Amino acid sequence: MKFHYPELLHGGDYNPEQWMEQKDTIWKQDMQYAREAGINTLSIGIFSWAYLEPEDGVYDFSWMDEVMDNLAANGIKAVLATPSGARPAWMARKYPSVLRVTENRLNNVFGGRHNACYSSPDYERKVTEINTRLAERYKDHPALLMWHVSNEYNNDCHCPRCQERFRDWCRARYGTIENLNRAWWNSFWSHKYSCFEEIISPSSLGEEENVAHLLAWRRFSSDNLVRFFQTEIAPLRRITPDVPVTTNLMNTFSGLDYYALGRAMDVSSWDNYPDWRGDERDLKTARISAFHHDLMRGVGDQKPFLMMESSPSSVNWHTINPLRKPGTILYQGLQAIAHGSDSVQYFQFRAGRGGSEQYHGAVIDRTGTNRTRTFREVAEVGATLKQLKGVAGSETRNQIALLYDWHVRWAVEGAWMLHRHHERYVETVRDFHIELGRLGYGVDMVDELSDISGYKVLIAPMAYIMRPGFGEKLKAFVENGGTLITTYVSGYVNDELLTYMDADPSPINEIAGRHVDECDALDDRTFAHFVWNGKKYRVKEVAELSTLTTAQTLAVYADRFYATKPCFTVNGYGMGRCYYIAVRTDEDFLNDALRYILNEANLQPILPKLPEGTWATERYQEDGTRFVFVQNGTHEKKTVMLPKAMKDAVTGKMVYEQLEMGELSVAVLMDE
Amino acid sequence: MKFHYPELLHGGDYNPEQWMEQKDTIWKQDMQYAREAGINTLSIGIFSWAYLEPEDGVYDFSWMDEVMDNLAANGIKAVLATPSGARPAWMARKYPSVLRVTENRLNNVFGGRHNACYSSPDYERKVTEINTRLAERYKDHPALLMWHVSNEYNNDCHCPRCQERFRDWCRARYGTIENLNRAWWNSFWSHKYSCFEEIISPSSLGEEENVAHLLAWRRFSSDNLVRFFQTEIAPLRRITPDVPVTTNLMNTFSGLDYYALGRAMDVSSWDNYPDWRGDERDLKTARISAFHHDLMRGVGDQKPFLMMESSPSSVNWHTINPLRKPGTILYQGLQAIAHGSDSVQYFQFRAGRGGSEQYHGAVIDRTGTNRTRTFREVAEVGATLKQLKGVAGSETRNQIALLYDWHVRWAVEGAWMLHRHHERYVETVRDFHIELGRLGYGVDMVDELSDISGYKVLIAPMAYIMRPGFGEKLKAFVENGGTLITTYVSGYVNDELLTYMDADPSPINEIAGRHVDECDALDDRTFAHFVWNGKKYRVKEVAELSTLTTAQTLAVYADRFYATKPCFTVNGYGMGRCYYIAVRTDEDFLNDALRYILNEANLQPILPKLPEGTWATERYQEDGTRFVFVQNGTHEKKTVMLPKAMKDAVTGKMVYEQLEMGELSVAVLMDE
Amino acid sequence: MKFHYPELLHGGDYNPEQWMEQKDTIWKQDMQYAREAGINTLSIGIFSWAYLEPEDGVYDFSWMDEVMDNLAANGIKAVLATPSGARPAWMARKYPSVLRVTENRLNNVFGGRHNACYSSPDYERKVTEINTRLAERYKDHPALLMWHVSNEYNNDCHCPRCQERFRDWCRARYGTIENLNRAWWNSFWSHKYSCFEEIISPSSLGEEENVAHLLAWRRFSSDNLVRFFQTEIAPLRRITPDVPVTTNLMNTFSGLDYYALGRAMDVSSWDNYPDWRGDERDLKTARISAFHHDLMRGVGDQKPFLMMESSPSSVNWHTINPLRKPGTILYQGLQAIAHGSDSVQYFQFRAGRGGSEQYHGAVIDRTGTNRTRTFREVAEVGATLKQLKGVAGSETRNQIALLYDWHVRWAVEGAWMLHRHHERYVETVRDFHIELGRLGYGVDMVDELSDISGYKVLIAPMAYIMRPGFGEKLKAFVENGGTLITTYVSGYVNDELLTYMDADPSPINEIAGRHVDECDALDDRTFAHFVWNGKKYRVKEVAELSTLTTAQTLAVYADRFYATKPCFTVNGYGMGRCYYIAVRTDEDFLNDALRYILNEANLQPILPKLPEGTWATERYQEDGTRFVFVQNGTHEKKTVMLPKAMKDAVTGKMVYEQLEMGELSVAVLMDE
Repeated sequence: MKFHYPELLHGGDYNPEQWMEQKDTIWKQDMQYAREAGINTLSIGIFSWAYLEPEDGVYDFSWMDEVMDNLAANGIKAVLATPSGARPAWMARKYPSVLRVTENRLNNVFGGRHNACYSSPDYERKVTEINTRLAERYKDHPALLMWHVSNEYNNDCHCPRCQERFRDWCRARYGTIENLNRAWWNSFWSHKYSCFEEIISPSSLGEEENVAHLLAWRRFSSDNLVRFFQTEIAPLRRITPDVPVTTNLMNTFSGLDYYALGRAMDVSSWDNYPDWRGDERDLKTARISAFHHDLMRGVGDQKPFLMMESSPSSVNWHTINPLRKPGTILYQGLQAIAHGSDSVQYFQFRAGRGGSEQYHGAVIDRTGTNRTRTFREVAEVGATLKQLKGVAGSETRNQIALLYDWHVRWAVEGAWMLHRHHERYVETVRDFHIELGRLGYGVDMVDELSDISGYKVLIAPMAYIMRPGFGEKLKAFVENGGTLITTYVSGYVNDELLTYMDADPSPINEIAGRHVDECDALDDRTFAHFVWNGKKYRVKEVAELSTLTTAQTLAVYADRFYATKPCFTVNGYGMGRCYYIAVRTDEDFLNDALRYILNEANLQPILPKLPEGTWATERYQEDGTRFVFVQNGTHEKKTVMLPKAMKDAVTGKMVYEQLEMGELSVAVLMDE
Repeated sequence: MKFHYPELLHGGDYNPEQWMEQKDTIWKQDMQYAREAGINTLSIGIFSWAYLEPEDGVYDFSWMDEVMDNLAANGIKAVLATPSGARPAWMARKYPSVLRVTENRLNNVFGGRHNACYSSPDYERKVTEINTRLAERYKDHPALLMWHVSNEYNNDCHCPRCQERFRDWCRARYGTIENLNRAWWNSFWSHKYSCFEEIISPSSLGEEENVAHLLAWRRFSSDNLVRFFQTEIAPLRRITPDVPVTTNLMNTFSGLDYYALGRAMDVSSWDNYPDWRGDERDLKTARISAFHHDLMRGVGDQKPFLMMESSPSSVNWHTINPLRKPGTILYQGLQAIAHGSDSVQYFQFRAGRGGSEQYHGAVIDRTGTNRTRTFREVAEVGATLKQLKGVAGSETRNQIALLYDWHVRWAVEGAWMLHRHHERYVETVRDFHIELGRLGYGVDMVDELSDISGYKVLIAPMAYIMRPGFGEKLKAFVENGGTLITTYVSGYVNDELLTYMDADPSPINEIAGRHVDECDALDDRTFAHFVWNGKKYRVKEVAELSTLTTAQTLAVYADRFYATKPCFTVNGYGMGRCYYIAVRTDEDFLNDALRYILNEANLQPILPKLPEGTWATERYQEDGTRFVFVQNGTHEKKTVMLPKAMKDAVTGKMVYEQLEMGELSVAVLMDE
Repeated sequence: MKFHYPELLHGGDYNPEQWMEQKDTIWKQDMQYAREAGINTLSIGIFSWAYLEPEDGVYDFSWMDEVMDNLAANGIKAVLATPSGARPAWMARKYPSVLRVTENRLNNVFGGRHNACYSSPDYERKVTEINTRLAERYKDHPALLMWHVSNEYNNDCHCPRCQERFRDWCRARYGTIENLNRAWWNSFWSHKYSCFEEIISPSSLGEEENVAHLLAWRRFSSDNLVRFFQTEIAPLRRITPDVPVTTNLMNTFSGLDYYALGRAMDVSSWDNYPDWRGDERDLKTARISAFHHDLMRGVGDQKPFLMMESSPSSVNWHTINPLRKPGTILYQGLQAIAHGSDSVQYFQFRAGRGGSEQYHGAVIDRTGTNRTRTFREVAEVGATLKQLKGVAGSETRNQIALLYDWHVRWAVEGAWMLHRHHERYVETVRDFHIELGRLGYGVDMVDELSDISGYKVLIAPMAYIMRPGFGEKLKAFVENGGTLITTYVSGYVNDELLTYMDADPSPINEIAGRHVDECDALDDRTFAHFVWNGKKYRVKEVAELSTLTTAQTLAVYADRFYATKPCFTVNGYGMGRCYYIAVRTDEDFLNDALRYILNEANLQPILPKLPEGTWATERYQEDGTRFVFVQNGTHEKKTVMLPKAMKDAVTGKMVYEQLEMGELSVAVLMDE
């Protein structure tokens, strides 16, 4: 099911149960302020379990009925949450199985949130019951727009039930204990198991060094949560088959395979909390946010996603929580739209007076009024989004895919290898993303299970682990004319983390026309160099030494004991090419190499010659209507040269040749 | 009861039970050395439980009788301790309830000290029993001077009994669970409790983000300890109603509301362990110690206090434990007197040969002799204190009060706000204290429950929380002509940590004639500026943006997006004035602003134009006799200009106009 | 029993059970590659328990028979391991007592290795059973060379059985609880025990500040492990009385008294993993390795030892794991020989494909081939060792002993003293070792129980604790003409950690002719100075102030408040002398002072005037044949001047006057 709404959404988390005794004043004012701010959607019911089910089996939906009716009466749509993100105290007391157990086998006590055991039968039953009642009650309510399932799911739990589920997961994956022993290489350190019953989760009190065991636990924990998600949404699917389902994600959160979770929901949504500082550091922040937006769109199979949360001003949980310079909130919102979001939503609509998350930013802040700068800036976002209504539902049509895979990340971060557990996978992928932006290209994020056949170029940095079928897919992609760019540490291990040997070679070897001999880890005082096209580049942190079979050398090392060995190569394979970058470098080489390769592949940027600190993205409606978004991520004014006159989609005015941009801003342009 | 003794006390902790087999040599020598060093008091019985009650119910006071008799025979007074600071091993084994439980619910095992559960009925019973016997036995002993109750009390414990007491504390405070839910803002995150039975203490395994819950736990833990203290002293009060009671404190130790504890005892006493380094860093150290002395005097309601412990040389528990430069110990002792102490006491009189605290400084160090530099320096202190006998019992008459409140500190440190949990409350109050010293003013430390009506100026930095009645008290203070100086983040929340809203405004708003709109947190690379009286100042870390109602602007921001907004204001209110400093600045502004304001308030410094690194304090006898103490906290010589000739109270010589001071020294002057 | 083999050993850990399904290919290839690489020994059976005893009481030695036969058939000797380094999962499940308990009393779960409880009766029984069977089965096998007992033994465990053993250990050491209380100075902090039953191990949940208690626990844990070792080898001694026994050590690992363990085995062996970086930092690394080699030789009573493990390339567990520059592996191997090793052995012979220790260096790396640089370098080592066959069995004849004592280290590191727990004992001893090397002297490492009567000079830095008899031994040593060099903090405490007093003086006082008054701890901004022989030296970190009795001053402090006090003294005592260095200094003074003192003692260096970064060692065969090893620990070429022509033992060529050395290299010279 594809989510679609004819407007861009503008709204946020709304917790009116905090003001139950002031319905006449606060609740009324809320609706008035929402209209003033151009808000057309509010997310409700997140963390409301204690109000919906004040005691076990006793339900009270009356207040929520009132809220839903208020929303409907004010033309506001409800993103209705299932309340499983936080359990009431009575539940922890009555059903202790809902509480997690830590890796060192200590039992949690009541408190916090996001900390349920996803294997607890009690929890599953209580969630199913309340979700069923919610769906039954509001299935026909005019305000209901979509389901917001739980909140910022995370894991994991080491209770006896989770242990048993882990063993079941192992049984299902491996069939026999011999297969598991072989896959986990348990022949070393006497770790061979006699039977599945001997298997337990990793622990600082036991096993934490077998990489395969650790990866299996991460995979199980992720799978167990996706399974729980399926269970949680079952009543929603049954009762409201036409209402889309989402759960809000947290960009690169490592605990869950978001692609797997994304494949189980209808629309991807996520919570965006950049650490704006109001100075030149914001460019890096903006670029990271851009990467996150693209990743969250990729998790949702490139469909429009939702920025489900963001702060309309500061947050209260960063190490330091500065105010936002005027204009930052508008930029933050339009940046999301530029990267494919159909919404700008906030945590939160009205600030509470105390408790957890006190001082977190809110549209209506702790003054309780609309007299604030924050409120005015939010209202400006609302007005702007109304002008951009035509963007709603439009999609990207990028020709470049960039691989970011949770299993790769788990494997690389778990590896005892070059920089033991600190191989910088996320940063490496992000660096490629940033350079693509600087060159003016749009990009889609994919994982190893994604369909990549439609792209012209696939960039697969540090593609360490070969998940099932990925090697074959890569071969087919390049054979059919695709351009593959890959790097050091790619294809080192199979899906079980077993290293490829000469006698059982990595699929990457054939495609890239070379194989790895050794890989050097350089410390922060040590560098190598190479020259390419007359320019000298620095090698840092990683330097692979390879033997070429069919590949051609593009550049060789200039120094250290591996001088003259190739460090940048290309291999013709079928109708395509594979470029192999054997070194970690500074951004100058990434930029030069990508410009060269993409040019070789005949890909044109969205806008050429963008000034430093700006980048462009596109969205297309099915009818071909194109929106070009130009972002200025700096605190300086920028002039962007356009190849032709275009129309400003917000103001409706024409822009000729020179697009003048203010600091931290987004221009939305249309073909005339 | 006010403690009074006709001499300044000189002495220290004395643990003769370590040398029970060498009474003839060591014990005898101890008395001789004490006389040589001018010691007139020794603290005994701290940690002696295992010797006083070698097995459950079997008591042995014979050795202590002997010690007390020795003291009396040598003209030395006993500060007699109750032994509850450390329990015998047999007690932990027989009554496990005396052991604490950690926040992650692990049971303590025997060991250490200062770690009893204050809710254990066994512990309460055993403490009551032994204290009763001690009081009965020594109530008429001529050596008995005062009670030293336990040692460096601290908290907390998470055992089931403490949990139950916490629930009782909540019941008493809130009456109904609805009231508690409202106060703790439990409507968020589904934290609403159904009943008091659901309440448990904060834990890293459960709840640690609800600020109200955390504050309640800190308040309970503090209250529970004050209650235990009351229980512990009950037999002493009953049997020795005329013997003053104290317990030794640890300056700004955060675990306990020392004002509450101070109100329950007769004389404040504390343990002073500055980290002297022998170079220019000592000035900061000396200023911090000055602040601590004034705070400990404030906790004791401005009466003379005792410096119950200090090291006569190095300690053994700092990260690094350097020797003290000659003269440092004399300075350390006289500084205490200058700030209101009636004693110079040491931990410890004679060093043990092993075990815990091996190598801690002692009057008689590990050589076991009087041939050491330390011994000679201590003897010099003794001789000096004899000369200053007339100071005993004198008090301060300061006109400025400075607010330091434990509840404010707990609230500010717990807050998820500008610099999450690192708002630097202690440092901020201390910075005001230091500038008052540099300007030559004496100051009394108070909390929000103190009577402030007698002061002319109250400085209340970061007075974040408004405890019951404090808002009204502030209004009355200013209305009646007082000058209030307050700062950013003052009056943000009520006593339950709920933020004030426009509809329920902070008491500070009216007095200061302005209200807060936003508050910026500046990181260590970011600064704002303002100009006042033609001088430019730097803003760091905190910058509040306010709207003025009745206040007048004294200075406005010069830059950032809040340029032209007021940052320093004054408001006439009744017969008084309220100055509001909306920014954190460097010391230059604090100094200039305080000079200006105190001048406006017609307050004169004790000594004008003190050279940098020196400061002055005063003590008065009831008959008006005045002692002026001038301190040089630097390692340079200083010349202090006196407005008139005065007499040096140690040497008896006259000092005309110029007071020449050596490095790290204190001059005691009297009006001629 | 002295281990002897007529060749230098070359080999490594071999775990063929990882390739049980590929015997025809992998196992065969292994033997071929071993021959190619000049390997004459392989260590087998380490961690093989799960394969030797796949279920409780069911044994399978068939595969090991095959391995042993393969070795014999290929002329390779077996270092046969007992498998106790890692237990099978079934054992943890069936006999939970084999699992350790942490200091905070949490039970371990299955996983990892090296983590058995050495007090578990189940573990002891199972170890005894399997060791008996191993010995019975292979006692007459031609491949059997020696026993490799367990692997990298370590401790400790806090289970109830270990607690009981600790109490028994205390009973045995102290006899009565009164004696223990006196020794542990339990009279302080009410720590006096009523009975041995009250004693428990240190814990962060209980006692961790009584230094004597902590030392007792470390001693017990070490003793308990040595006892376990005795139990573990009992069947080996009984069944194979002529087969030498070793267990592999880890240089300065603090958990065990390696001298005590060394005294219980036949040949010392250890695992050497220097952190080579390929640049100037390697000199420090090489010097530290040199120190470790000498220490491990000392632990083995100066007999030839084995470098049982080393990486033939990178490791995978350092923070960063760079490749080794060509030539490093050869240097690493010959350095071991130079310092007395009779072997160069690797972890590991063939790399596994996954699991724990994936990516650790191996002779046959993850390519599974001999085509790698690593393989070629290992083969070069093999060829070189064949040329040096004559070195096997030769020993050192050094005249200087340097004290490194595990009890001293435990005591110093546990002390709450100058730099609380950071007194830098290891670094201090090492600094003396380095300067001896720079001056061209060879040195033997000893502990306080070693026989030192045969040496001319004993250097005892920071000899803090006087173990039983050591004071007397020192006196005899100097009285009989020896030269003792000692330093600050030496002789502060007796074997129970009780400080010496004037009335019970330290044995050092008499020998050194002075006693300590105070000891200053200097922070990293603070320095003192002194002048000796017209040269100015810097004092850092530690400066002792002493009073001389019979000693003569060599140098006095030049500044701070201890100017003119002596800081370097000498005392004639009997026929010998004691030099006392009261300060920690930079290397320049250590070098100058040692040169002066060793010259005074008429000791000649092995080679005079060695260029910076080179050093020399000697080994002698019983017949007087001498091998001189010259090492270049730098990455620069060096020219070493020889006093006479010598023969290169590898090439057989003569070297006249000038020995030209390449970077990181070892020359082996013989008298012509």
